[in-house]
Amino acid sequence: MKIELLTIGKNNFPFIEEGIQFYSLRINKYINFSIRYLPESKKLFNMPAGERQRREDEIFLREIKPGTFLILLDERGQQKTSLEFASFMQQLMNRGYRHIVFLMGGAYGVGEKIKQQAHEKLSLSRFTFPHELARLIFAEQLYRAFTLLKGEPYHHE
Amino acid sequence: MKIELLTIGKNNFPFIEEGIQFYSLRINKYINFSIRYLPESKKLFNMPAGERQRREDEIFLREIKPGTFLILLDERGQQKTSLEFASFMQQLMNRGYRHIVFLMGGAYGVGEKIKQQAHEKLSLSRFTFPHELARLIFAEQLYRAFTLLKGEPYHHE
Repeated sequence: MKIELLTIGKNNFPFIEEGIQFYSLRINKYINFSIRYLPESKKLFNMPAGERQRREDEIFLREIKPGTFLILLDERGQQKTSLEFASFMQQLMNRGYRHIVFLMGGAYGVGEKIKQQAHEKLSLSRFTFPHELARLIFAEQLYRAFTLLKGEPYHHE
Repeated sequence: MKIELLTIGKNNFPFIEEGIQFYSLRINKYINFSIRYLPESKKLFNMPAGERQRREDEIFLREIKPGTFLILLDERGQQKTSLEFASFMQQLMNRGYRHIVFLMGGAYGVGEKIKQQAHEKLSLSRFTFPHELARLIFAEQLYRAFTLLKGEPYHHE
């Protein structure tokens, strides 16, 4: 199984990049995980939010292969505890999905098309986070989920 | 007004330390904010959780001056949106509190004494985070709260 976090735009903060690499390396001891940073299209910057969402939806959808289990990371999604999230990941593995994509929308969020295609909507918190920090939080929770599933202590190395 | 985040133990990850400094510097453009890292007592490591909580409660309470508004950061606390958190901070400023302490418990959480003395209990997410990451998330949200209150754009510098 392969897990991907699909996002738009780079990490501009070195501390975020370092943190994400820290957790990504550790997740990859358990499972194939990577973050894909789609390039931000400057052409979209001056568009109205709705139009920008529609265009970004199309950009995202081109990257998602058929048969992928798609989870939208969205403020209005369902919140899970770390244990619930771990058990959710276990269920997906049991169901035999080969490719799981977590999608984090652009600055204006995603449009209706992605919302309809997503199999699940998951919220990290009621707080609004900058995208970069949200990526770091997600990576840490995914790492935590696998340490929980493997019954391993959570190492604060 | 002075805001303090009171915690036990150091930041061991350089990326967390960098991130916290990044946000702390920015918060201090708006308000006097600092994080106090109380030393971890190795003597407490082998104690049963309840006893350790009681001892750590006492260590914390020694650091909290009378008249302080005490907010416990606790997984079972109330979750706020970023806007609600900003408006909560505004209310505390309006009420004229001179010293606000956000308290993040040790590895085993806090005991009953702190829970009883806390004026509010606030949760960052249903997820469990490592303390260091929780500090970073808190610092970012406090920064966000002040940019919201000042009507300033949130800069992704």
